[in-house]
Amino acid sequence: MTQQQTWSQRFESALHPAIALFNASINFDIELIEYDLTGSQAHAKMLVHTGIISAEEGEQLVTGLEQIRQEYRQGQFQPGIDAEDVHFAVERRLTEIVGDVGKKLHTARSRNDQVGTDTRLYLRDQIQQIRGQLREFQQVLLDIAENNVETLIPGYTHLQRAQPLSLAHHLLAYFEMTQRDWERLGDVYRRVNISPLGCGALAGTTFPIDRHYTAQLLNFDHVYANSLDGVSDRDFAIEFLCAASLIMVHLSRLSEEVILWASEEFRFITLKDSCATGSSIMPQKKNPDVPELVRGKTGRVFGHLQAMLVIMKGLPLAYNKDLQEDKEGLFDGVNTVKACLEAMTILLREGLEFRSQRLNAAVAEDFSNATDVADYLAARGVPFREAYNLVGKVVKTSIAAGKLLQDLTLDEWQQIHPTFAADIYDAIAPRTVVAARNSYGGTGFAQVSKAIDHARNQIRE
Amino acid sequence: MTQQQTWSQRFESALHPAIALFNASINFDIELIEYDLTGSQAHAKMLVHTGIISAEEGEQLVTGLEQIRQEYRQGQFQPGIDAEDVHFAVERRLTEIVGDVGKKLHTARSRNDQVGTDTRLYLRDQIQQIRGQLREFQQVLLDIAENNVETLIPGYTHLQRAQPLSLAHHLLAYFEMTQRDWERLGDVYRRVNISPLGCGALAGTTFPIDRHYTAQLLNFDHVYANSLDGVSDRDFAIEFLCAASLIMVHLSRLSEEVILWASEEFRFITLKDSCATGSSIMPQKKNPDVPELVRGKTGRVFGHLQAMLVIMKGLPLAYNKDLQEDKEGLFDGVNTVKACLEAMTILLREGLEFRSQRLNAAVAEDFSNATDVADYLAARGVPFREAYNLVGKVVKTSIAAGKLLQDLTLDEWQQIHPTFAADIYDAIAPRTVVAARNSYGGTGFAQVSKAIDHARNQIRE
Amino acid sequence: MTQQQTWSQRFESALHPAIALFNASINFDIELIEYDLTGSQAHAKMLVHTGIISAEEGEQLVTGLEQIRQEYRQGQFQPGIDAEDVHFAVERRLTEIVGDVGKKLHTARSRNDQVGTDTRLYLRDQIQQIRGQLREFQQVLLDIAENNVETLIPGYTHLQRAQPLSLAHHLLAYFEMTQRDWERLGDVYRRVNISPLGCGALAGTTFPIDRHYTAQLLNFDHVYANSLDGVSDRDFAIEFLCAASLIMVHLSRLSEEVILWASEEFRFITLKDSCATGSSIMPQKKNPDVPELVRGKTGRVFGHLQAMLVIMKGLPLAYNKDLQEDKEGLFDGVNTVKACLEAMTILLREGLEFRSQRLNAAVAEDFSNATDVADYLAARGVPFREAYNLVGKVVKTSIAAGKLLQDLTLDEWQQIHPTFAADIYDAIAPRTVVAARNSYGGTGFAQVSKAIDHARNQIRE
Amino acid sequence: MTQQQTWSQRFESALHPAIALFNASINFDIELIEYDLTGSQAHAKMLVHTGIISAEEGEQLVTGLEQIRQEYRQGQFQPGIDAEDVHFAVERRLTEIVGDVGKKLHTARSRNDQVGTDTRLYLRDQIQQIRGQLREFQQVLLDIAENNVETLIPGYTHLQRAQPLSLAHHLLAYFEMTQRDWERLGDVYRRVNISPLGCGALAGTTFPIDRHYTAQLLNFDHVYANSLDGVSDRDFAIEFLCAASLIMVHLSRLSEEVILWASEEFRFITLKDSCATGSSIMPQKKNPDVPELVRGKTGRVFGHLQAMLVIMKGLPLAYNKDLQEDKEGLFDGVNTVKACLEAMTILLREGLEFRSQRLNAAVAEDFSNATDVADYLAARGVPFREAYNLVGKVVKTSIAAGKLLQDLTLDEWQQIHPTFAADIYDAIAPRTVVAARNSYGGTGFAQVSKAIDHARNQIRE
Repeated sequence: MTQQQTWSQRFESALHPAIALFNASINFDIELIEYDLTGSQAHAKMLVHTGIISAEEGEQLVTGLEQIRQEYRQGQFQPGIDAEDVHFAVERRLTEIVGDVGKKLHTARSRNDQVGTDTRLYLRDQIQQIRGQLREFQQVLLDIAENNVETLIPGYTHLQRAQPLSLAHHLLAYFEMTQRDWERLGDVYRRVNISPLGCGALAGTTFPIDRHYTAQLLNFDHVYANSLDGVSDRDFAIEFLCAASLIMVHLSRLSEEVILWASEEFRFITLKDSCATGSSIMPQKKNPDVPELVRGKTGRVFGHLQAMLVIMKGLPLAYNKDLQEDKEGLFDGVNTVKACLEAMTILLREGLEFRSQRLNAAVAEDFSNATDVADYLAARGVPFREAYNLVGKVVKTSIAAGKLLQDLTLDEWQQIHPTFAADIYDAIAPRTVVAARNSYGGTGFAQVSKAIDHARNQIRE
Repeated sequence: MTQQQTWSQRFESALHPAIALFNASINFDIELIEYDLTGSQAHAKMLVHTGIISAEEGEQLVTGLEQIRQEYRQGQFQPGIDAEDVHFAVERRLTEIVGDVGKKLHTARSRNDQVGTDTRLYLRDQIQQIRGQLREFQQVLLDIAENNVETLIPGYTHLQRAQPLSLAHHLLAYFEMTQRDWERLGDVYRRVNISPLGCGALAGTTFPIDRHYTAQLLNFDHVYANSLDGVSDRDFAIEFLCAASLIMVHLSRLSEEVILWASEEFRFITLKDSCATGSSIMPQKKNPDVPELVRGKTGRVFGHLQAMLVIMKGLPLAYNKDLQEDKEGLFDGVNTVKACLEAMTILLREGLEFRSQRLNAAVAEDFSNATDVADYLAARGVPFREAYNLVGKVVKTSIAAGKLLQDLTLDEWQQIHPTFAADIYDAIAPRTVVAARNSYGGTGFAQVSKAIDHARNQIRE
Repeated sequence: MTQQQTWSQRFESALHPAIALFNASINFDIELIEYDLTGSQAHAKMLVHTGIISAEEGEQLVTGLEQIRQEYRQGQFQPGIDAEDVHFAVERRLTEIVGDVGKKLHTARSRNDQVGTDTRLYLRDQIQQIRGQLREFQQVLLDIAENNVETLIPGYTHLQRAQPLSLAHHLLAYFEMTQRDWERLGDVYRRVNISPLGCGALAGTTFPIDRHYTAQLLNFDHVYANSLDGVSDRDFAIEFLCAASLIMVHLSRLSEEVILWASEEFRFITLKDSCATGSSIMPQKKNPDVPELVRGKTGRVFGHLQAMLVIMKGLPLAYNKDLQEDKEGLFDGVNTVKACLEAMTILLREGLEFRSQRLNAAVAEDFSNATDVADYLAARGVPFREAYNLVGKVVKTSIAAGKLLQDLTLDEWQQIHPTFAADIYDAIAPRTVVAARNSYGGTGFAQVSKAIDHARNQIRE
Repeated sequence: MTQQQTWSQRFESALHPAIALFNASINFDIELIEYDLTGSQAHAKMLVHTGIISAEEGEQLVTGLEQIRQEYRQGQFQPGIDAEDVHFAVERRLTEIVGDVGKKLHTARSRNDQVGTDTRLYLRDQIQQIRGQLREFQQVLLDIAENNVETLIPGYTHLQRAQPLSLAHHLLAYFEMTQRDWERLGDVYRRVNISPLGCGALAGTTFPIDRHYTAQLLNFDHVYANSLDGVSDRDFAIEFLCAASLIMVHLSRLSEEVILWASEEFRFITLKDSCATGSSIMPQKKNPDVPELVRGKTGRVFGHLQAMLVIMKGLPLAYNKDLQEDKEGLFDGVNTVKACLEAMTILLREGLEFRSQRLNAAVAEDFSNATDVADYLAARGVPFREAYNLVGKVVKTSIAAGKLLQDLTLDEWQQIHPTFAADIYDAIAPRTVVAARNSYGGTGFAQVSKAIDHARNQIRE
């Protein structure tokens, strides 16, 4: 750490090497470099636009910054830990390239508004990428759903068989969850895409800058209306991490189900070799590592959300160095969500196969048609709660007798209640039972087909 | 716990008393009772509307439910722990009042969609109340700001004096934060105000219900498009708790500042007796309990957010009993945010007074006008980074000499750089310095006045 | 709120009623009342012991405090919200009972050290109760284990069948977890059982108190060595909440397993009516509410831990009002852990039954003996990784052929590797396989029996 | 990713490249490599010791592993992402070096117990390092304390001046906190230093291994008593992260104080150039980045704790892939705590200077001696609560009159209460006031000196 800090003139002695290392952010904020260059180019153009620097100076700055971008992409610009942060690294390299005019770039700007700008440009991009990934995931869900409208699968509450379902209907629940994720990210985006550039250190600047001009160059929708808020707001990062946490909640729920379905006990799916792994010691194992990792990574994203909230709690205005800690968690949150979405999309698309024979057998082997018996009676005038109690008793005696409901004779049915007629058998057949739940949003095949159409339209938007 | 459970017909023996107590939610979900009654009335009307029950039956149910509402309000209906939950408590009381027809109420409905409906009705109300409180808080902020456009206050970064500010500008930062809170709650509201009623246990129902009809009666904007999702989605609670956490972040930041301002060292405000408390042992103490408690309660809301995320992680579809745990954290989150907003509003309105004399003195006693010297040079053609370095040296020598910048003679200024002229003294006077940061969103008085006008318009919406 | 605050003499005007309500803690810290009385009695005795007050005065104080205890137990002392907190409520009532001498009780003490003392006395008790509950839980585990040493159950990794196990061995894993919980609480206890009494507001006191004397009267092991630390330390609460979180992690893991075992797919256990609940709409349902609630409540305790950490972060010394927020989360954490331990103990003891026939069938129907084939070869000189690869192939072809390993002919075995002999059939029988894992800590029956004996000895300590 | 996975024989097709990347842990678990080598060497020796492999084979394995260690240290062994994890990377390289005997290394072992062993060996080392750092930090605290027993500093509660303190006493509070940290880590260590080696995949092994032998070779205190628990327990990581969070709580509290002390308003310390940084735009700034970053990093460690708890919640036995997510958070938690302890130690040792003149002035300018007036009266027989009320009034009238307590005439004192005599002036002088709080653990100089001696002895242990 021999290089002098940019801010060192008021300082007499050098920074302790260990402290310099502790303070440095270049090892992770280098991820922002292209956004930093873009932001600085817009700033330089604005300085020209407002007459703060000359057109020629502006040209030199913009070109110099572009050169750094090329150097970076070609691996020639690799600032070390002594660069402190990406902003200083760029400014210093710029001055090497363009000479003294490079020292004018930081006019009417502070690192506080600069880093805020970079972070928002970064997150804006990432949100769009994640929304794109959500759409891909939904596409795969819909493809499977379309092929499985009439495939039946047991439906559960409390992990107890409750009522049989259309497999498509089950999968569409995840469509809805990710649709909310997609919309929510849209809302977050609106609050991310606001420019803090020009807020200065905390108070604005004495230069006649034009913040709307830079905002326009950078495609920001708005500019921050208060400079203190502009440099110290991290709501957008927290809001993103909450949206990311919810994506992980949804993926973790699907993961749990895939893990269950792949178990010897459920056997609802077969994992394909391309998406499963083995054991180092047990030769027969085929493990659902992907959903397990996704489920595990859920905690990680929750942790970043929590960390970011903790960082912000009780910070006095305006910028505090604590805010430097916003980046690593945000970056890792972004990367984790993207990796998990990609992995789950691959898993659904090519990593598992539903075992339809087993599923069809499964729905016929339990009492999950019991509600339909109660509904049968209720639809014929027996008060629901009474019908419900009656069926409860039937289930109890049937279990004791080792029978399922479909095994009862008509005689037995009529002893239970005279209302029962021969159509009871059809009424409680799995396919009938599923088809009959045709209320809006229900699992009835007609509803499900409509829901798929509707979903297709939504993602076409 | 002698009363039989509603679902006990399939069961042979009674629930263990300790387990019954463990499972019961009536002690906290009683908070939902009026929403439950309203939801059930809408459900009953829909059953009539669709011909599932007769008009007369519907009338009896609606009237009976209204009677329970009156009994509850008058303290006559107080279900005990043996009622299991508010839904069963109501259904049982209803059957006592209206007889067997009461048993028809639960036709085409499950507790899963019912409790989802109740919770959304509750949260919808609470969000509107909190938005109202945010508006009141902003009103008070604006009133103080309006009277303090030209009151100066030191501005800080890293809790070091950075640049002086208009006090109004400082307070408007909190306006912006709470404005985002207000908008964010609006987004959350859109995802809360969706009806799950009619999703049944998980799969919809065999009855020809009309979910849009109940949604309309209950003023829901939409209905859940997938029944599994409808009964197992708690995104809305998490999203609310994240929005609530952000409100707490903002209040905690203001709290920290009030605590600092009230200290002997800052003395920027005087706490009024109506909002401060004393010590049990130190007779001189006057403690800022309100902001301290608000700061402390921040952790509590974060904790509820985290708890809710943890509850949802990895839950297979659809409803699981874990979801019963959504309520206490949500209720406490709502109550905490409301109490803190109320307390902070009172504190600002009548609990503290800015000490303008002290503030005016404060801004003249430091080097927070150093940036303006650099800007002075930069505006006169010296590259910013060079000007900055020069001023860094001046500050260093001035500190050593025990002088402030305004104490330097013109001669001394010109030795530093020939560009300095007599107007430097005015250029670095606190009032000039503040006024000069007149970029959009900056602390310049003209900007601040405009910002207040703009804010007034926003909250009039 | 008409009553004057105890600290009001320096104050000219009354507290705003809403603020008084906001500040008040009496609604929850009343839980500490008996500890407060006990602590105050010890303090009064110490004041006599050191000559600060007379023996007669001390007697009056101790007797008066005891009277309050009786009044409280009989429901006659029920301080309202205007009492601010339990400490002032007691002091005021004491002065009503014993007159002016009551005003001497607070000599050489502050609420800061007082509330710290109360909280530690409370938590100390609770820890002992929870440790007792852990022992009860372990007792039940051991009773079941003892009866199931030779009951087999599939063992899982990645929720894939891995190797068969002794059911007792599986249950003993939870013995080990709770044994760590028990020990960990012992460590926490050591850091809880330290007296802050006499630390005063923050700096100690000018009175010649004897802190070791009160510590001894109250059975504290040590006294805090630094007064600032004594009044502002909440490590003990955080440490407890972490230990509580770990108990919940363990209970949640067992809960997950019970939920799986109770499913139609696993059918490893039958839930008894006394510990299961039904559905409001599906008459056949029998839901494992207890483990689901325990799993859900896990998030709640994690949330309290997180909240408490957040509260403490960045608080300057010494006492800050934020610390008042330590109580509700701590109390709820204690109550939640106690309720969950009780419920899970009941569930294990009388709420479920292992279906041994199903379990025995389960272990014979899969490839979980594949490792034993590899071990068979490795024990006969084939390098392990080579043997492993060989068996991998066998499993693959067997699956394709619809066979299990035990279905291969000796000829087929020998074609795979000439080393196989007739004893391979015995070597891969479930019972043999389990018995053979007789390494220390393994599932071999002999090991498991020893482990049970060892565990019995541990809990006898 | 062209290399075949170690477990691929049961698999027909290759892993999807994106999934291979998603599953791989080599990019972070390479941190464990030396522990992995050490653990494998012990395992190889045990295989010889128990006759499972020959002495010659064992020798080859141990030597081969040692060669990998050297290759790694010299940067020659750098496994890529296709190595899946560090364990397979090592095993493969070993087989390259020693030939087929390398395939025998994994006999009687699984990755599950292997990675558990590695992680514990790693954490054990790290805990010892952190404990060493805590001792260094304490040493610096004691050095400063020793020089500042009689330096006075205002003491605060609620950030309001409460009672003056010995600066040494204030610093000793942090000694106590870190002493608990040191002890707590000792407790954690006991639960970390237990060997899971030999637990196998989950059930133990059929080979006649000697787990106590490897434990002894690796200096473990105990071996896990239950194999399922041994491979799936991560309590130790959670417990460590809780202890780490508490260290961060303590450091964040000190950080907050340093930030306050360095402010223009407090001016209690001067930050030295070696540990402060400047602004990119404000030339006068000297920012306390170190304590700000430490305060910010606190959230990060809390986040890792939370993440780890979330990962473990509800995982069925035994090993699940989710557990792979334990590492990055743990490593970052370790690194963060170490970096913060180092930075804070440097900061205290050479980065700041207490401004004793300012401190001495500060303690004489407020009402923080008011308690002493009350104590003065109480010690002379006036009931404490009465004396307290009296002094409250005096403070109120003094503030109104613009006077401090020391400014009152004896006449004025005696009008307040006849008990006051001329010794009141001495009784309320800052030095007297501090000296007088000589109760055990109090700020009295004699106490503080004793406390320093005691602390010196403690860290010599």
